Amino acid sequence: MLSSAQQSFLSGIFSEEDISFSPEEICAYGGDSSRLFAMPWAVVQPRNVEQVQELLQFAHAERIPLFPRSRGTNVVGACVPQGGGIVVSSLNLNAIRDISPTDFVAVAEPGVVTAKLQSACAAKSLFYPPDPASHRISTIGGNVSTNAGGMRAVKYGVTRDYVLGLKAVLPGGQLIECGGRTHKNVVGLDLTRLFVGSEGTLGFITELELKLLPLPQQTASVLVGFSSLEAALHAASEVFRAGILPVAMEFMAREVLEALSAVTTAPWPEATRAVLLLKLDGSEEVLPLELARLSRVLELCSPSFLATGQGADEEALWEVRRLINPASFTVAPDKMSDDVTVPRGRVVEAVAGIREAAARHKLVTLVFGHLGDGNLHVNVMYDKTAGQLPVAKALKDDVLKVVLGCGGTMSGEHGVGMTKYPYFNRQIGPVERQLMRRIKADFDPRNIMNPGKAY
Amino acid sequence: MLSSAQQSFLSGIFSEEDISFSPEEICAYGGDSSRLFAMPWAVVQPRNVEQVQELLQFAHAERIPLFPRSRGTNVVGACVPQGGGIVVSSLNLNAIRDISPTDFVAVAEPGVVTAKLQSACAAKSLFYPPDPASHRISTIGGNVSTNAGGMRAVKYGVTRDYVLGLKAVLPGGQLIECGGRTHKNVVGLDLTRLFVGSEGTLGFITELELKLLPLPQQTASVLVGFSSLEAALHAASEVFRAGILPVAMEFMAREVLEALSAVTTAPWPEATRAVLLLKLDGSEEVLPLELARLSRVLELCSPSFLATGQGADEEALWEVRRLINPASFTVAPDKMSDDVTVPRGRVVEAVAGIREAAARHKLVTLVFGHLGDGNLHVNVMYDKTAGQLPVAKALKDDVLKVVLGCGGTMSGEHGVGMTKYPYFNRQIGPVERQLMRRIKADFDPRNIMNPGKAY
Repeated sequence: MLSSAQQSFLSGIFSEEDISFSPEEICAYGGDSSRLFAMPWAVVQPRNVEQVQELLQFAHAERIPLFPRSRGTNVVGACVPQGGGIVVSSLNLNAIRDISPTDFVAVAEPGVVTAKLQSACAAKSLFYPPDPASHRISTIGGNVSTNAGGMRAVKYGVTRDYVLGLKAVLPGGQLIECGGRTHKNVVGLDLTRLFVGSEGTLGFITELELKLLPLPQQTASVLVGFSSLEAALHAASEVFRAGILPVAMEFMAREVLEALSAVTTAPWPEATRAVLLLKLDGSEEVLPLELARLSRVLELCSPSFLATGQGADEEALWEVRRLINPASFTVAPDKMSDDVTVPRGRVVEAVAGIREAAARHKLVTLVFGHLGDGNLHVNVMYDKTAGQLPVAKALKDDVLKVVLGCGGTMSGEHGVGMTKYPYFNRQIGPVERQLMRRIKADFDPRNIMNPGKAY
Repeated sequence: MLSSAQQSFLSGIFSEEDISFSPEEICAYGGDSSRLFAMPWAVVQPRNVEQVQELLQFAHAERIPLFPRSRGTNVVGACVPQGGGIVVSSLNLNAIRDISPTDFVAVAEPGVVTAKLQSACAAKSLFYPPDPASHRISTIGGNVSTNAGGMRAVKYGVTRDYVLGLKAVLPGGQLIECGGRTHKNVVGLDLTRLFVGSEGTLGFITELELKLLPLPQQTASVLVGFSSLEAALHAASEVFRAGILPVAMEFMAREVLEALSAVTTAPWPEATRAVLLLKLDGSEEVLPLELARLSRVLELCSPSFLATGQGADEEALWEVRRLINPASFTVAPDKMSDDVTVPRGRVVEAVAGIREAAARHKLVTLVFGHLGDGNLHVNVMYDKTAGQLPVAKALKDDVLKVVLGCGGTMSGEHGVGMTKYPYFNRQIGPVERQLMRRIKADFDPRNIMNPGKAY
């Protein structure tokens, strides 16, 4: 808890509307999309770098834990103020400072919603590629802090690949500048990339310099079904073998198709057991040709159906993908989801292992996601009121075993936060973890930044 | 110097052909492409990880400096054993362990020559995009240690973007594993990327896991001249504005064209003052269309000439680019080169500033390079025997001022090594530098790994 002296010091930094100690107001900042919760001691919403510096100087001196937060869309509890402390919201740091069509750089504060940045870039014919599914509600600061992935990662990579530079305030109040507006830069250790995916444990990011690309003129997509998972994955590898690097390559396993049929009229015939959804982009002139070429490759793989679309037709194809999460809840009322990732060639093995584990625990488990990266979303569906939570946990545990057994990672794009923290040692060795903690101590010697998270 | 006890301990780790203390033999390992030199105390060439571990345990205990080295193509002195110590050559660690067409991953030891890895990948229709100009003679370990760039960075990014995981031995002998074979991974701090560009200061890399892409079917190029630098840069921005992301976009300023005319029959007409060289890639079917589209955009920018090529014709277009370095020496016998980088939109300003500085110091200075990234190679030509070295140094200093004044960086792809070390503080603040040094101490508390380099 904060002493009244501490409260009054904080009230001197922030104007009244930017600070709250009232439980009714601040309880909304205690949870995130993980549905975990811890009550914060206070919430502050800095409007400028100076306020962030004063706050981090004070919190460092007083050893008060700080929990950076933007819109709380994190699904692994990375925003939850466990153990208590001050939630530092970036929502007032939401300016797009620059979008430069000559430098191909955007400069944004951490609280800018990613989709808003993307639209502002598109208005200048520029393209910020990373597109986590949450891009309409999550922020660029949160995306950087978790190294967010998304659909387009197959062709364009992840958030890390677009962060050229950043400014951050360290505990103690010092402002540091890492990287800059240049597209290439090799001077000293790469502090910029160290912040990417650090889940708010090193400092508070106040500004980001992001790499932009020219906006592709058009996109087109293909939805294609197969009679087995193996056939779908064979088709996926045939696409790559033809030298095609799609923007996105999503897949949905049988259980997902079944769940979807409960909420929508599926566009695929009965015998379909796995579906791929692929997106291409390019110029008006060549995109139709690329789409035809992709379709030819897929047609040779004996699909149960194949539909292509551009414009509104393309949106319709992606609609089924968006329905997966709502459809999940027709299976069971509770969901435990993961974003495990395996080497691309071991997806069949991973899905088979996950299915076996699900059968053993008798819980329906939906596997879908970013096939092009081997990044599988695994929704374990269960019923808490029927006492299935321990079963779901045991299954999650088995899923992790399968994934690590395939040379995979427990997180491809969500991060570790709180929910994967107990599993950390299964993937990362003690020497590597010790190194991470020593590096954190270099930035945050008193361990006030999002303590107990990530590593 | 090594004591005889130390020499005999080392001789117990390495077989006779893999260790030398003989000045005649080891002096070849004292320099690199920077032409700087320091005499090493010994050279060892480990054949396996165990030897590396024993060496790093011993060197840590005895506080003996180690200087990792592959083929010594570094141009900033990063391989030079200044102050003395043991050169650790990776030339015996040169196995390609795996090239997986299903995982899209290559696993290689650090001593593998980059072009060899690329050919081995291409034989399986796979593509390792980073292509530093040295790719035929430099190694993947060296490329990772300097985060090498290259021509294709405009479309494909730099070495950093392709390192999925690595193994390294730390001082003390512990082997660490960072990242892995998955294309996405967000678990803990990003130690993998911390090694990229670290110039051998953190540990000795023993294995790299690299991301591969499907091999594009074909490439095609355009060589195009303009009557002024401004017109060339305007054309470059028109290309991006049309939504075209070329694989490569090189440029050569007037002084470069003049130097080239001394060694080759230039394909451009007299009035040409700046040349762009662009490369595209794609499928057989669409590449001709993309090439035509690119040519149309360029034709609208009033070029003095335009030539396109595929296959052998394409090679011929690139031949002039390769002649720049030999041509430099027709201007003056000595060269001081830099790889400064500015924000893409400030290239005109940077080139103008560099030209002014060159005129002030009365030294011909060739500016060319990776326009698409704002990465300019600046060859200051001088004559040491005519006492011009101090003038060249003063000019280098002015070039750096111009570049930093444009929001640029002193190195886009070569790193800092020894030659840029004295300038480090001009670009990086004291807090950031202190952080880098603390991080180094987490890996290497006794500062034995490539001491006095980089940061």
